[in-house]
Amino acid sequence: MSKQIITISREFGSGGRSVGHRVAGLLNVPYYDKELVKQVAVETGFDEKFIEQEGEYASPWQSLLSYAFAGGGGVRQHMNGLSTADFLWVIQCRVILDLAEKGPCVIVGRCADYILREREDVLNVFIHAPISFRADRVVRLYGESDVTPEKRLEEKDKRRRAYYKHYADREWGMSQNYHLSLDSSLVGIERCAQLILDVARNPERGPSAL
Amino acid sequence: MSKQIITISREFGSGGRSVGHRVAGLLNVPYYDKELVKQVAVETGFDEKFIEQEGEYASPWQSLLSYAFAGGGGVRQHMNGLSTADFLWVIQCRVILDLAEKGPCVIVGRCADYILREREDVLNVFIHAPISFRADRVVRLYGESDVTPEKRLEEKDKRRRAYYKHYADREWGMSQNYHLSLDSSLVGIERCAQLILDVARNPERGPSAL
Repeated sequence: MSKQIITISREFGSGGRSVGHRVAGLLNVPYYDKELVKQVAVETGFDEKFIEQEGEYASPWQSLLSYAFAGGGGVRQHMNGLSTADFLWVIQCRVILDLAEKGPCVIVGRCADYILREREDVLNVFIHAPISFRADRVVRLYGESDVTPEKRLEEKDKRRRAYYKHYADREWGMSQNYHLSLDSSLVGIERCAQLILDVARNPERGPSAL
Repeated sequence: MSKQIITISREFGSGGRSVGHRVAGLLNVPYYDKELVKQVAVETGFDEKFIEQEGEYASPWQSLLSYAFAGGGGVRQHMNGLSTADFLWVIQCRVILDLAEKGPCVIVGRCADYILREREDVLNVFIHAPISFRADRVVRLYGESDVTPEKRLEEKDKRRRAYYKHYADREWGMSQNYHLSLDSSLVGIERCAQLILDVARNPERGPSAL
């Protein structure tokens, strides 16, 4: 069965989003990233910026705290006692399952690999790169900030790892969770995209692969 | 810099050795696997079968026990108080560093990715596949045994993971330790080999990759 849905998980600054965008362009299918976030925002009535941050980075501790101390809000009446982060997780799962049902697409981030684990037509990809490489790239793309780029990367990766562990109960970046894990600094955006395209269109079938 | 040395780590039954063999053939460079084991055996005077098992699978607990209870032997006078497993590790490191120094090659297993971590000309690959796929393959290649193939695979993987953790202090199979991690059941032996060849010969250089 060819792979209709491609999920891309990535280390911050590794170029995973660029890979996803390129693959979607080559396949001429929808690309979901911030668009997905917007859709979640519409469904929940939350502020888009807030969802963008909470939807992938919220630490379990933060969500416990926010659950304990948050005041009431218009949307909280729909949350059935869930923490903000848990509520967003449920909505996010539903949106991603619906998107996959609609047809071929590329989804970047948002634990889509885990959320779609029951489907047979999904190709899961992890894009990573050495921290020195990502640091150079982040500064080039986003400019300097108060903290060193290495510190920013470590913090982002740490939060993604914790979020993935909390909701998927898996190790973020563990090879076995993905069909392809690629070091973008060595493979390059274009070769990553071409490989994903080739494997998605022509996966090996059964023992003939070996 | 092109990648002269290719290390292949693999889940048992995933076809990683076949990939390594194919890559070595395509590149026309030496392939080290059991050959490496033989060379270690010659240097240490240990029985080859013993080294083959201990050299990659020995659990730290087993080696502690063998250290505590082992009787004297011809080779033990050279071990300087190291456990058998630690002694083999030291020899193995030396052999692998020497082999890499000699020139281009493919090395399968034996924590070569970690042992050669200081070199810039090494491409590290991890080959894996779903357990159901590996179980079918193991039975096809090696026949039935007293325990289920799934049980055999889990046991082998567990020991490799523990060995790698003990000596490399890293998580076995974590994407970030390899340039390419590939699901052989989907990518197939031949496509794995061709990709490795292509990336080894034409690695991206610096920021142009992204």
